[in-house]
Formats: sequence, structure tokens, C-alpha cells
Amino acid sequence: RMQNSRSKPCSCPSLKMREVASMYFTMVAAFLVILVVALQGSAPRQSDFPYKVPLDPQGLLELSWNVSYPEQAVHFQLLIRDLQFGLLFGMSDRGEFENADLAVLWSDGHNSYFGDAWSDAKGQLHMDSQQDYQLLEARRAPEGLYLLFRRAFSTCDPKDYLIEDGTVHLIYGILEKPVRSLQAINISALHGGLQRVQLLKPNISIPELPSDMKTMEITAPDVVIPSQETTYWCYMAELPEGFPKHHIIMYEPVVTAGNEALVHHMEVFQCAAEFDSFPHYNGPCDSKMKPDRLNYCRHVLAAWAMGAQAFYYPEEAGLAFGGPGSSRYLRLEIHYHNPLVFKGRHDSSGIRLYYTASLRPYDAGIMELGLVYTPVMAIPPGEDSFILTGYCTDKCTQLALPAAGIRIFASQLHTHLAGRKVVTVLSREGRERQVVNADGHYSPHFQEIRMLKEVVAVFPGDELITTCTYNTEDRSRATVGGFGILEEMCVNYVHYYPQTQLELCKSAVDPGYLHRYFNLVNRFNDEEICMCPQVSVPQQFYSIPWNTFNRDVLKSLYGFAPISMHCNKSSAVRFPGEWEKQPLPSITERLREPGPRCPPAPGPQPAAPVPLNLGQLRRD
Amino acid sequence: RMQNSRSKPCSCPSLKMREVASMYFTMVAAFLVILVVALQGSAPRQSDFPYKVPLDPQGLLELSWNVSYPEQAVHFQLLIRDLQFGLLFGMSDRGEFENADLAVLWSDGHNSYFGDAWSDAKGQLHMDSQQDYQLLEARRAPEGLYLLFRRAFSTCDPKDYLIEDGTVHLIYGILEKPVRSLQAINISALHGGLQRVQLLKPNISIPELPSDMKTMEITAPDVVIPSQETTYWCYMAELPEGFPKHHIIMYEPVVTAGNEALVHHMEVFQCAAEFDSFPHYNGPCDSKMKPDRLNYCRHVLAAWAMGAQAFYYPEEAGLAFGGPGSSRYLRLEIHYHNPLVFKGRHDSSGIRLYYTASLRPYDAGIMELGLVYTPVMAIPPGEDSFILTGYCTDKCTQLALPAAGIRIFASQLHTHLAGRKVVTVLSREGRERQVVNADGHYSPHFQEIRMLKEVVAVFPGDELITTCTYNTEDRSRATVGGFGILEEMCVNYVHYYPQTQLELCKSAVDPGYLHRYFNLVNRFNDEEICMCPQVSVPQQFYSIPWNTFNRDVLKSLYGFAPISMHCNKSSAVRFPGEWEKQPLPSITERLREPGPRCPPAPGPQPAAPVPLNLGQLRRD
Repeated sequence: RMQNSRSKPCSCPSLKMREVASMYFTMVAAFLVILVVALQGSAPRQSDFPYKVPLDPQGLLELSWNVSYPEQAVHFQLLIRDLQFGLLFGMSDRGEFENADLAVLWSDGHNSYFGDAWSDAKGQLHMDSQQDYQLLEARRAPEGLYLLFRRAFSTCDPKDYLIEDGTVHLIYGILEKPVRSLQAINISALHGGLQRVQLLKPNISIPELPSDMKTMEITAPDVVIPSQETTYWCYMAELPEGFPKHHIIMYEPVVTAGNEALVHHMEVFQCAAEFDSFPHYNGPCDSKMKPDRLNYCRHVLAAWAMGAQAFYYPEEAGLAFGGPGSSRYLRLEIHYHNPLVFKGRHDSSGIRLYYTASLRPYDAGIMELGLVYTPVMAIPPGEDSFILTGYCTDKCTQLALPAAGIRIFASQLHTHLAGRKVVTVLSREGRERQVVNADGHYSPHFQEIRMLKEVVAVFPGDELITTCTYNTEDRSRATVGGFGILEEMCVNYVHYYPQTQLELCKSAVDPGYLHRYFNLVNRFNDEEICMCPQVSVPQQFYSIPWNTFNRDVLKSLYGFAPISMHCNKSSAVRFPGEWEKQPLPSITERLREPGPRCPPAPGPQPAAPVPLNLGQLRRD
Repeated sequence: RMQNSRSKPCSCPSLKMREVASMYFTMVAAFLVILVVALQGSAPRQSDFPYKVPLDPQGLLELSWNVSYPEQAVHFQLLIRDLQFGLLFGMSDRGEFENADLAVLWSDGHNSYFGDAWSDAKGQLHMDSQQDYQLLEARRAPEGLYLLFRRAFSTCDPKDYLIEDGTVHLIYGILEKPVRSLQAINISALHGGLQRVQLLKPNISIPELPSDMKTMEITAPDVVIPSQETTYWCYMAELPEGFPKHHIIMYEPVVTAGNEALVHHMEVFQCAAEFDSFPHYNGPCDSKMKPDRLNYCRHVLAAWAMGAQAFYYPEEAGLAFGGPGSSRYLRLEIHYHNPLVFKGRHDSSGIRLYYTASLRPYDAGIMELGLVYTPVMAIPPGEDSFILTGYCTDKCTQLALPAAGIRIFASQLHTHLAGRKVVTVLSREGRERQVVNADGHYSPHFQEIRMLKEVVAVFPGDELITTCTYNTEDRSRATVGGFGILEEMCVNYVHYYPQTQLELCKSAVDPGYLHRYFNLVNRFNDEEICMCPQVSVPQQFYSIPWNTFNRDVLKSLYGFAPISMHCNKSSAVRFPGEWEKQPLPSITERLREPGPRCPPAPGPQPAAPVPLNLGQLRRD
């Protein structure tokens, strides 16, 4: 068909249909080889992986990666320092080994293989019908084996994990024995673990830094890391006397070499200006020896968590510190995570602040969105995903924001232990416009300040709606809002400029309506819950006999009852106005869930009209 | 390229890498051509389209089709008798022209084109990026133009309609002028319409028919179809005196040639045995002249709707008629749909019954599942999809079904005007096992008896749960359950064998709990709804001030409150037992939504492990 098919002497092979088909498949195979070669040719160099995190507490597995937004793909480089008989690496909803999406390297003792696999609800491994972890290179080096592979954010294979903004739970498992096949791997017997990272780092161009920029390191003074799994270490630092107002314009972690797997997260807090001095403490934060006054050091200056990089303020703004009305005292808090209970490790990690005296046009500010810390917002026990919502209403932003609006450039989501998802959405004139920050795999154990992919402009009259999803399946009584670790919060600390007086824009259900709810539950269920006024709201929640009706009606109440607004200059001072029994913001148009972007499926025909030879259609 | 590329005399081509790639693409193109040819070669013959329906009231557009379950595809043959400048044909959720999935044939006055398109929410047409209506043939014939095309049930293109079991709303539009392009078509100006069909006819093998089979035609006696859009015609027929018990084992429509587009649906009812005789009426069913006694002719013997084919009973069963205890009188009801108001059309359509005196092993029976006809089950106004559920509980089936169970082989879903979806699911030991019948695009204007794809076995202790979804967006007051056309029903008439005494297995919420709900609404909303006992349930529903809370709490009530069961031998006689305040069946495991089956996406690599040349992994 493709050749001259008549038999002339010395002719080229005549291809019959069957041969064409066979040739076709051969060519496809050839093409795949070319593809692999091509991909290997374009495999990024080692310096092309700007993000790095140790996977295991010993740091034997080190993951580096980069993000290509044009390609909608992540390139991973995994360094395996002490390779045994293979490795599992992958992602799952919350770090579990069941229902996980895995890249697997395994050896049967003679040969080695790489494949894209998934684990079912029982942890049994299966080869994936679509191979989406694409191996680009496997390379021996003195320090270990490097595996380079690529993964699209979205593969549209229902067995694959969808890589989204926010937290990603990475998992790893080490094969200590040869295995006959992928299916023979017993996942429950593996030595493995999980690591949380923000995989999709925002693709932000770094603002120009001024020439007069200085640095200051707030670091632990050669601390011996306690030989226990969890330590929060507190160290007090002090700015020089008479230190004038500066702008922090950037900060980055300083992690002692060798301790990369132990330093989990670090924060620098500024102390309250009302105290002239603070004691110079250096020790565990939960020690009885810790002076109480350190509790007044809570204003976040900088926060870092494992896997995060340098934090840059936008070029128009900086975080003010120093100068009159600002405390000279800083508290460094380091969370050491030492599950293997190493002894005698010394550490001098901390945060390096980059600051300038050439003040930028705007001071940056931090605002709290979400729910007021009050027990009236509660979660029934036994729920797998109960939703609470906190509002920053149009009335408050109308009053408190400048006409030119504010720009939110970073966000830190916060809940206590039951939190599973957090999202803040901007709504204008009743229509949801933009996601401010969303984490569908939120973990209370991984709270970092995240730069936003795009700066969000908020104007007077806009509404900011923060929704938290909780899991209380392991609890037997209601979880109420509050400060305790077993109580809950729903907060988004947004970093913005220019700074305004508005520090808190949060809500809670109207307490009178909640009282009606308790009443209703009482009557409807023929129950004798004490409604006596001296009984506290938590006690009333604890005495509710939970069933689907009481649960559903509480949901309906939270979705209907008016709210009490905290539109505050500080935690105690409200803006003037009526803030009780405010109507719930009404949303007439929701943002669409972004559907997974699939690679285009092979159309049976190309996307062009098919010309037909019908002559003129109309017969005259 | 496929030829000798260097100029040596008579050598065979040496293929360089680049040439291989180019060759690859040429081959792919060649392969596609072969594919298209192959499809055309396998294009079904005209006799291969067993199902046929006129699309328009004049019958100028005639659709035939077949269903291939192995291919998961439908082949359409569209006959266009009077082609002008093209045609739109497609599918949409409920027959609207917005958000529709369309195959379009159009002419610019010179050339004709065919393409797969979709319309957006404003009715603007777009070419589909994936062409899933595959044109197989376009052929002129004396009677018109035949278009043959193929469409997979599921294409995984989010713009495409998913072809599912149950009702499909087909739409058509006629292009009366040439158009420059697909995008230039103004959908709102088209002459067009909709036609409802069950596209995915079950693939049932036809049972063997006995040699002594006889036929009886129950047909209209040369009726002149009234020149009005809607007529229900009633005609009384009579079985011969002393007609013994027979089994109806099959029936089929008899439609007068030329009236295919006017005869919308037909039913044959048997009259009540308690009356010795019935008047011989022949006229409109809503005429004042119609004798009241005809209201006692309600036992369905046969039902047909446009697009349906012959109905076969399973070979073990037949529908009993004739013999003692059975009325000799039958009522034929024909719905004429005459929107173009044709005058003077004569019609002798009806139903041909096939019956046998050689009784089959089992009598077939009909059972009503779903909700009791009572106002306690109500739908708030302004809802786009409010759900009500009726239960046939384990306790009732335990009591009423034989140990060997029953077999459901056909089903007719029924609601009034607000019904949008109906589904019945079989649950056993709290786990949903099987869908009995589901229609996600249910229309109250298209209620046919449908043979099930698979016979469903129901055993004592099983539960049958029927769920209806309603739309009341156009209503300003609550819609309560009841017999009126503006009241609602939620019923599945299931056809089964062997016949049992159980005729009704339906539920409604406990009236006491509903009373508590009215009470709660009263108190919670500070409203003065008259709770006086003399006020009827509908009046109480009508006086509720509807808001999200009252709506949500009603939903919660229906999902929580105990039920009153009708486990009845006939509409008035209950089985012995306690049927009030019964617990709602609890479901611990739901059936999974069947995900759309997509054609496999092209994996970047084949689904096999990639062998690596790493030597032995472990270095000893």
C-alpha cells in the first residue's frame, strides 16, 4: 500500500494489509522509544529542583522537585541513599497506605523494575492501567540512586491522586527483601512513613531586593535536641536598644546540616509592647520553668514549615518591626520531630530575617477570618465531614477597608485536631468570585504561611467566607469551639497590605437561635435536657442525644440563623455599629468546582466538520 | 517518504529517525482511513434498526436505531424526508436546546457539512473538540436523505450527553436557510421540537411462543382524531361470553399507517369484576357523556408508548385474563397528540394481545411500590430537586412473599407533573444490592411499562426503596401528596411473578412526627400557624413560611421520623401486623454510582513495568 506493490525486479517489499497493521504497531513501539529518549533528553538537571524535603526521619530518602505550570506537571527527583530491594513513593488523601497512588521500584533479586501502581482499600497493590509516573532517568551516584520521574497534576485516571494546591501527603515504603512481583508486596509489613508538603509551590517572581538590605538570624543557641518524639523549643531573642522601624521583606530557614529531617517547623513571634522587658528563656515551651510572660509573645513575624522555602513580601510592602510602640523582644519556637529518638543531636536552626530601613510604601498587616472562638459553634460526634462556616460580612469590610481595597498575598490556615479541609472564598454582590486559599488535604500538623498564587484584591462591601470541614469519627461527645486542643477553631490568618485597623473579621451563630435549637431538640426528641440558664453551652451540647435529626437540624440552623459579627480593631475592640443578629450573607452564584483537566482523549475523528458530497441540499 | 529517499538504484529505503517519526504520522493517518472504511463497511443495513420513532408531528423526520451492548454504542439512522439546508439532532437533559449535545448537518448553500457540536447555556453552538457522533453514511434515496451515525453511550467529553437507561429527550431543529458556519446557527429561531424515547432498549431474547397462540386486537373503531392538541380517547371492548382463563404472553401496538406521529400512547384496562356489565362507550375520556362506571376499568392489561416495541412476558409467566372472577369488559385508552391540529384524520390504532389457553406455570402480578397517596408527604415550593422516598420494608416482604421469592421483570414509574427522576433500589440486610429500575430523565409525559434488562429476584426480608426527585421551582405553595394532578405521587408499578397477595407495599411519614414538625416551625419562626386540630395537613403545609431552615428540617424529618407502612392485599386490606411507627430501613452500604466508562486514555507508557538496568539493587 505504501510501496509499489507490483513485482518489478529488485523491488521493495510489497506491504499487504496485515503487514501494514503489524508495521503500524512496530512503529508505535518505535515511537514510544523515541518518546522516552526525548523525555530523557529533556530531563531537568539536578539544579533544576528548587524544592527539597527529607521523606524519612533519618534523611535517607530525599525528595527534590519542581513544578511546571505550563506543562501542568511535577518533576520529582528522589535520592535513595541506602537502596535495598526497592521503594514505594506516592500520594494519598491523608497519608494512608490504602487507596494510594504509588510509583514503585522493585527488585526480584536479579532484575529491577519501575511502575505506576495503586493500592486498594485493603492495601493490595495493583499495576495501573495507565502509567502516569513517567520514569525519566535512573542514575547511580556516589551518594545513592537518583530516580527522576514526572507526573501530571491531573491524569484523569480514577485510580490516580489529583495533585492540587495546598497540602499533599507523600508516603514512602522501603522494600527490605526481594519481591517476585508488584502484587506480592505486602504493604502492611513495610517500613514506611509519610511527609506533608505543599507540592504546588506558587510560581512567583522574586521582587527586587534593596541594596541596603540587612539580615538578622534568630536561631537556637546550640540546643541539644531532646530525645523524645515531640519538642517545642522556646528561645527568647532581643532587638538592639533603640532599633528603629524597619520592614522585613523576606525571611528564610536556617537549618543545621544533618538535622533537616528533625526540624519540623519554626516560628518567630514578637512580644506585646505593653511589657518593657521579657525574661531570656531558652528551653522547652511546655516546661514548668517557662516564664508565664512568654505567653504574651504571639504576634507572628515569620513562620516556616518543612518543605517551605524563603518567604518574600510583595515589593510594595514589608512587615514593620522595631521603632516606638513595638516590643524589642522576639520568641523563636522550634518544633523538633524526633520519632527515632536520636540522642545528643545539637541544633542551631532558626530563621534569617532580611530587612531594610528604606521603608516600602505599605506596612503589611495580618487579619483573622473565620469563626469566633466560642462554644456556640459545635460539631456533633461521629461525623466524617461536618462543615462550619465563618463570615466576614460586607457591612464590616464596608466600614473597615479603604476605598482602594487591600491586597491579600499570603495565608495561614488554622484549625485544631479535627480539621480536615479549609477554604476561604471572596464573594462580591452575592456572587463567589475567587478562592483566596484552599486546602482540601489540610492537616493541623502542617500549618505554614503560604504565599498565594495570585494576590487577591478585597474592596469595601466584599465578603470573605471561610469554611472548615471536620472529622469527629473518633469522638463520642460534641466538639465545641474554643481555645483547647480538643475544642475547635476555623481561622484563616491572611497577610495583606496596606495595613488597616481591622484585625478580626469573624462570626458565630446568634446565641438566641442556638437556644431555640436546644429547646427544639428537647421537645422533638422527648428528651430531658436541662435547659436551665445556669447550664453552659458546652454542657448543653454534651447532653444532646445525637441522631441524624438533631445533627441535620444543627446543620440547618448554622445555614439559616443570623450571626453575631466580630468586626474588631483588636480582639477586644469592635468597630462601632450593630453587629448582633446580622443576616447571613446570601450567595446566589457559586464558584464552579474546577473539573480535572484531562489530557485530551483520542477523538474518533478530528474536531472539524466532515464535508459531505450531497450536492445542494435543497432540491428546487 | 515511504519510498526510496536516497537515490541509489533500486535499494530499499533506509529509515532515519526523523523519517521514522514522519512515517509514523503518515501511518496513523492511513490507519484512521482504514478505520473509517472499516466502520463504513460494518455500517448496519436498514433492517438492522429495530426501533423507530417519528421526531416531528408531521413525521418528516424518522429516527431508527439499534443498541450494541458489546460496543456500548447506539447506531442511529435518520431519514430526512424534506431536507432543506440541514438539521440538528441531539440529546439534552430534559429536551431543552441549551446545554444540548448535537449532531449537525448544515449547508452554506454550496457545500454540506456534518459535525458533532454542543450548545451552551445561552443556546450558542460550538464545534465539539471531540467528535463523538461518528458519521457512517449519508445516502440519497427516493424517500429522502438517510444519515447513519454512531454514538458511544459514554464519551467522557464533559460537553457530551451520557446515554443512560430510562428516558432520553431527543431534540431536532430544521435549518430553513443556508448558514455560513455552525456558529452562525441561531438556535432560538429554528423550527424544532423534542421527542422522548427509551434509547437503551433491553437486550432480551424473545421467549418461545406456543403453537396455540391466538391474537385479539383491541383497536379504535375508525375514530376521527379530534382537531385539538390533546385527546384521550376511550373505547370499550368486550371479551366473548364464557371466555375462559388465558395468559396474555405478549402484546404489540397496532398503529394506523400515517398516524405514527399522532398516536402518543395507548393502554388496555380490565374493568372491575364486581359489575356484570359496562356501557359500550366510544368517545373522549373527558367527555361529560362518558359513563361514570368506566372509572372502574383501571386494572392495566397492556400499555404502550411511542417508540416502544412488543412487550413479552417471561416464558414462565403470563398475565391472566378471562375465566371466573374476571370482568369481560376492557377499556382501550388512546392519547392522541395532535399539536399541528390536523383535521379529519381517521384512526384505528390499538393493541394486539397474544394469548394462549396453555397456561404458563405462573400468573404475573403487579405491585405498587413507593409512597402512600397522602398529604403528609409534601414538597416545599421553589425547589429544583427535592427528594421523597417510599419504603417497602423487610417486615412486609417477610410476611407477604413466598420463600422462593418473586421475580420482577418489568416496571412502570409514575409521578405527577413535578416528577423529574425515579429510582427503585433493592436492599438486603441493610446493603443496597441492585437497581430495580431507574430513570434519571424521567418525564411524567412518558410513562411506559419497561422490561427490565435483568429480572430482579426479591426474597422475604428484602427492602425495596423508591426515591422520587421533584422540581417545584414554578410553584408558590407546597405540593402535597395526593391524587390531584397538582398533587404528587411517587410510585413504581412492578410486574412480577408468581403473583402474591401483596398488591401495595408503600410508606408515608408518621403523622405524629409531622405534627411535631408543624409545632417546631411555629415556635422556631415566631409564626402564627394555626395548629388547631381542625386544620387539614395541606392547609398547614400551605401556611408554612418557607425558608431554608423550614425546608431543611422537613428534609431531616423525612430522613429520620418513623413511617406508617401500607403492606396491603388490596388498597383497603392490610396484612395483619403492626404497621404504624415503623423504623426507617437503615442502609449501611450504598450502591456506587456507576462512573462513566471512558474509552481508555492514551497512557504515556504501556501498562507494564519498565525494566531497569541497575544490576542488583543491594550492594553487598
